[in-house]
Amino acid sequence: MTTKRVGGSTIVYSTPPVIVSAATVAGPKESEGQMAQWFDELVPDDMFGERTPEKAERRFMEDAIKIALGSARVLPEQVNMIFAGDLLNQIITSSFTAEGFGIPFVGLYGACSTMAQSLTMASAMVDGGYADLALAVTSSHYQTAERQFRYPIELNIMRKSTSQYTVTGAGAALVGRSGGKVKVTEATIGKVIDMGIKDPNQMGPAMAPAAADTIFAHLADTGRDPGYYDIILTGDLGRVGAEILRQLMAEKGVPLGDNYSDAGILMFEGVRGTGVGGSGCACSALITYGFILKRMCQNEISRALVVATGALMSPISWQQGESIPCIANAVVLET
Amino acid sequence: MTTKRVGGSTIVYSTPPVIVSAATVAGPKESEGQMAQWFDELVPDDMFGERTPEKAERRFMEDAIKIALGSARVLPEQVNMIFAGDLLNQIITSSFTAEGFGIPFVGLYGACSTMAQSLTMASAMVDGGYADLALAVTSSHYQTAERQFRYPIELNIMRKSTSQYTVTGAGAALVGRSGGKVKVTEATIGKVIDMGIKDPNQMGPAMAPAAADTIFAHLADTGRDPGYYDIILTGDLGRVGAEILRQLMAEKGVPLGDNYSDAGILMFEGVRGTGVGGSGCACSALITYGFILKRMCQNEISRALVVATGALMSPISWQQGESIPCIANAVVLET
Repeated sequence: MTTKRVGGSTIVYSTPPVIVSAATVAGPKESEGQMAQWFDELVPDDMFGERTPEKAERRFMEDAIKIALGSARVLPEQVNMIFAGDLLNQIITSSFTAEGFGIPFVGLYGACSTMAQSLTMASAMVDGGYADLALAVTSSHYQTAERQFRYPIELNIMRKSTSQYTVTGAGAALVGRSGGKVKVTEATIGKVIDMGIKDPNQMGPAMAPAAADTIFAHLADTGRDPGYYDIILTGDLGRVGAEILRQLMAEKGVPLGDNYSDAGILMFEGVRGTGVGGSGCACSALITYGFILKRMCQNEISRALVVATGALMSPISWQQGESIPCIANAVVLET
Repeated sequence: MTTKRVGGSTIVYSTPPVIVSAATVAGPKESEGQMAQWFDELVPDDMFGERTPEKAERRFMEDAIKIALGSARVLPEQVNMIFAGDLLNQIITSSFTAEGFGIPFVGLYGACSTMAQSLTMASAMVDGGYADLALAVTSSHYQTAERQFRYPIELNIMRKSTSQYTVTGAGAALVGRSGGKVKVTEATIGKVIDMGIKDPNQMGPAMAPAAADTIFAHLADTGRDPGYYDIILTGDLGRVGAEILRQLMAEKGVPLGDNYSDAGILMFEGVRGTGVGGSGCACSALITYGFILKRMCQNEISRALVVATGALMSPISWQQGESIPCIANAVVLET
């Protein structure tokens, strides 16, 4: 058997699968920013006409899947498996959504790193020959995340200056063997990194060391330097976390250049009341499957390293005085 | 490329990976039953000397990994990735444990189906050439599960006659290309099935239709009948759920014979105060990696179909009046 690993924690797809289609569905605040032009569906009501934000989040995920399948003219029964995850306890958005489509389901939990985690697994299943078509899906919702991780929004708690704003939306990618311009060529699976930060209002700084670890591992495994990529995108470090990542990479001797961007910063540039940037599973999903993928299809980007970052903390571990374990998963997209 | 799928939702490993080593760590109640003879470590204190049950659960998982690696003489840095999941919100047991070993981490959420889900993915990564060695790990703990899903045990709520008892323990399997007697040959990934049951004291009945769906799909995909297997083991249906599964399979025209067992029933046979049987991620993990695997190594079993069942409900969805979505994932073990 030909080895498909280049060493370390990076896997290489021997016959790189392609993104056959992808879809992004964005909430109202996400529709205010400059990125909105790249999204497939803009939803003016973050409740999506539902009674609870949990039900609303499902509608976002459902629509992302419907649009991705529809634009590829693929029926749910043609999809061999769906890799999905979200931020909610027991990833209930993903479970209920998968039920609705009747597709064999592999539930993932990688917090905001789920976009890269699910795309990595879906691509491995297609490249490995276990699936002809696999979906990679994720979502997040401002209200469901606030209720679960911080406070119900009805309490109107004052947000801190370092807070990030959870993105409301969903992204889906349909991965197959052919029929798409953008290939998934490699992936670097992250280790859990914990630098002792305990404040859930400091997610970007907590996640930056994980992003640095995965990017450094990826570059070491592949023998590349950051300039190989037209864009290196982190998931949701925000302005504070992105600056820390730059410092960490400079200290490691591989400084990031102008090709480095953060999805959390891009998402809410110029949008009021969003703190230091966006966060949540949908943050990297919307920017990757919207902005990056569409620009790749327009030949404006040919190589992208997407590094989705996740804070794996739980309210219970945090209440018990534990710090925030973080992870970053990277995927390489190439035309 | 040779297709590795036989159709439907069953994947076939082209060069079946092997279980290089496995380990089971069981709590005090689990040590009282007849299955205890098959477990590697019996822990008399369910708190494992820790201050919180959440920390205790981690110790169970850590020990399972240590024993599995130790008996294979493999160092953590030789393992390419770890697939792990548990019942706790944000699978915090798995995240913290993965951090301690420094192995690239893919977090899964399949509730009590995680044992088969993680083994399926670890096997795919080895067979697909993406990993030389991959770990599949899961755990559960009576106290952490009660606190999260029902009531803190301090409230001393009366248990119902249909209640199951969450298994305290952890199981780990190290999957590789060679060096083991038991092969992982196939896997059937389940769909989410929801029959409208809303009572969290009725988990077995809620999960039985999912088990029936996956077993039926597996048999249809492979063209086999239940008699092909020396043992068909469901994860944690308990006495009530197992009886419902028998009825459902008989109605589908493929009745299960004497080769059918349920891990939840086996786990606590003759152990007082355990309701209709065990449940939790560790239930199928302990019985599979203990009882089944060791009997396979002793040539007493040569073909096993392990169908790990999971209830994907969340306390919040349940409080919002939603029913319990369930799943069952199957893996085939052969010598």
